[in-house]
Amino acid sequence: MRVLTGIQPSGDLHIGNYFGAIKQMIDAQNTSEMFIFIANYHAMTSLQNGEKLKENSIKAAAAFLSFGIDPQKSVFWLQSDVKEVMELYWILSQFTPMGLLERAHSYKDKIAKGLSASHGLFSYPVLMAADILLFDTQLVPVGKDQIQHVEIARDIALKVNNEWGEIFILPEAKINEDLAVIVGTDGAKMSKSYKNTIDIFNDDKTLKKQISSIVTDSTALEDPKNPEECNVFKIAKLFLDNEGQENLRNRYLKGGEGYGHFKMYLNELVIDYFKEIREKYNELLNKPSYLKEVLDFGASKARKIAQEKMQKIYTKIGL
Amino acid sequence: MRVLTGIQPSGDLHIGNYFGAIKQMIDAQNTSEMFIFIANYHAMTSLQNGEKLKENSIKAAAAFLSFGIDPQKSVFWLQSDVKEVMELYWILSQFTPMGLLERAHSYKDKIAKGLSASHGLFSYPVLMAADILLFDTQLVPVGKDQIQHVEIARDIALKVNNEWGEIFILPEAKINEDLAVIVGTDGAKMSKSYKNTIDIFNDDKTLKKQISSIVTDSTALEDPKNPEECNVFKIAKLFLDNEGQENLRNRYLKGGEGYGHFKMYLNELVIDYFKEIREKYNELLNKPSYLKEVLDFGASKARKIAQEKMQKIYTKIGL
Repeated sequence: MRVLTGIQPSGDLHIGNYFGAIKQMIDAQNTSEMFIFIANYHAMTSLQNGEKLKENSIKAAAAFLSFGIDPQKSVFWLQSDVKEVMELYWILSQFTPMGLLERAHSYKDKIAKGLSASHGLFSYPVLMAADILLFDTQLVPVGKDQIQHVEIARDIALKVNNEWGEIFILPEAKINEDLAVIVGTDGAKMSKSYKNTIDIFNDDKTLKKQISSIVTDSTALEDPKNPEECNVFKIAKLFLDNEGQENLRNRYLKGGEGYGHFKMYLNELVIDYFKEIREKYNELLNKPSYLKEVLDFGASKARKIAQEKMQKIYTKIGL
Repeated sequence: MRVLTGIQPSGDLHIGNYFGAIKQMIDAQNTSEMFIFIANYHAMTSLQNGEKLKENSIKAAAAFLSFGIDPQKSVFWLQSDVKEVMELYWILSQFTPMGLLERAHSYKDKIAKGLSASHGLFSYPVLMAADILLFDTQLVPVGKDQIQHVEIARDIALKVNNEWGEIFILPEAKINEDLAVIVGTDGAKMSKSYKNTIDIFNDDKTLKKQISSIVTDSTALEDPKNPEECNVFKIAKLFLDNEGQENLRNRYLKGGEGYGHFKMYLNELVIDYFKEIREKYNELLNKPSYLKEVLDFGASKARKIAQEKMQKIYTKIGL
């Protein structure tokens, strides 16, 4: 099963990203053929600051390698290193009815949130379709807000196939239904835009501050507490096996400890869990030439597949 | 002065194309730095038949070389051979407000004429902007229907320059105001879509048929005729110097000859004028590897300039 994932190089990653999607992606390397790219072309639709975009791309590469992307097992590359995707984007545009893009929720949502209505933002789903179709992707793991984009890719593929025969695999969206929502420090879904995150690669002081800010109720220190309704407990569970969860639950129920204690404990859990990942991350950030080498290696694997696909398309479109 | 022209590989060329634009382009090679490309990416917006598109592109290359494009003097290439333009198209899309494209007349006109409203057709002006800006174009000779597209390219360039400093030259449209409209066989402007053309590279039989079909009045053979109101005369003038025009005018005024005679004369004029061009054209069509060589040579010149430009843009956008 060939699975494609695009990583937005959008800066600081948080534990919601990790437990919500990244961990599954890393694990899937053992069972699926993973194609993972850093979506720097896409990122341009909301960020035209070159220095920042470059920095974010490098950080994303370092982060995902630290999490455990294995460049031997998976194809891992920087989107702009495989330029074939741009040409396919233009070719697919000829098969993309304007109505399909005009109906895209994500574009309307972004405009509503104040992003300016640029052609880049509008045509984003066509580039995403090119990403997906160029590599014969079968499955695209997405959040609910992205399901429509996979459907657009599918619609475009169908239109091309109707015209040219079976050129493209029809991709399917895979929604991680069984995942619990990862709550943020305020109890809502953890999300950068809600400013309720617990970041993975920030410094220890920021981590402590973010964990301290987790909203709890005002039960007195000596009284028993309800773990199931406590945001600290909900987050701590992510880091604990059944036994660990049971122990913590008992400490809540027994009373005699305050939320401050549980937050300190959560702080330790986070630091322990991400210790090696954070070390690796900082080590990689100091080896830019190694990072480039890894991305080049991935790009050469991706390019080979892309070029083979484009040869078939060239015959059809007359290039 | 750097001048850029895109040639639509849209099949048969007629004498309206030649006297309306091509002749000026060929002559301009002596006074300007000409960049001339066969716009096969653009052609995809209305034609997705690969075989036909490829054939049209080869025919266009053969035709324009026969007309006198000098690959040493000018930069002459096939658009899809310089793929940098695709990447610039995407980057410019981030600086293209949707409103700018939504106001484009040409898109609305094409939809009104029955072309399907595809994203390719809609975003055509952004690709045209990329063509223009990639090569630091100063002047773009256009028909009136294309002035707005040059303005769009200018607007996009201004937006980028405001953000990033003086990256792009602001292009200007050049409209061939002083050119007489070339009339077709029915007296309206000669145009493929009016089916009133006199083709350059069609066979002699078709040429004869097209010239025979020129609409004239019913003045009797022996009577004097008014040359200024005769479509045959209007077209014949294109091929004649002042003396030749005077001679033909006198034949009209004297009477004693019918329109059939004048049409026969026009037929000779056309055949004489395009004799060498047609021979060269047929010769080139039989040398596909030579054509490829010429286009490759042009592409390598264009690519060098494109890559230098893209390096500057990469620094700004973070690639």
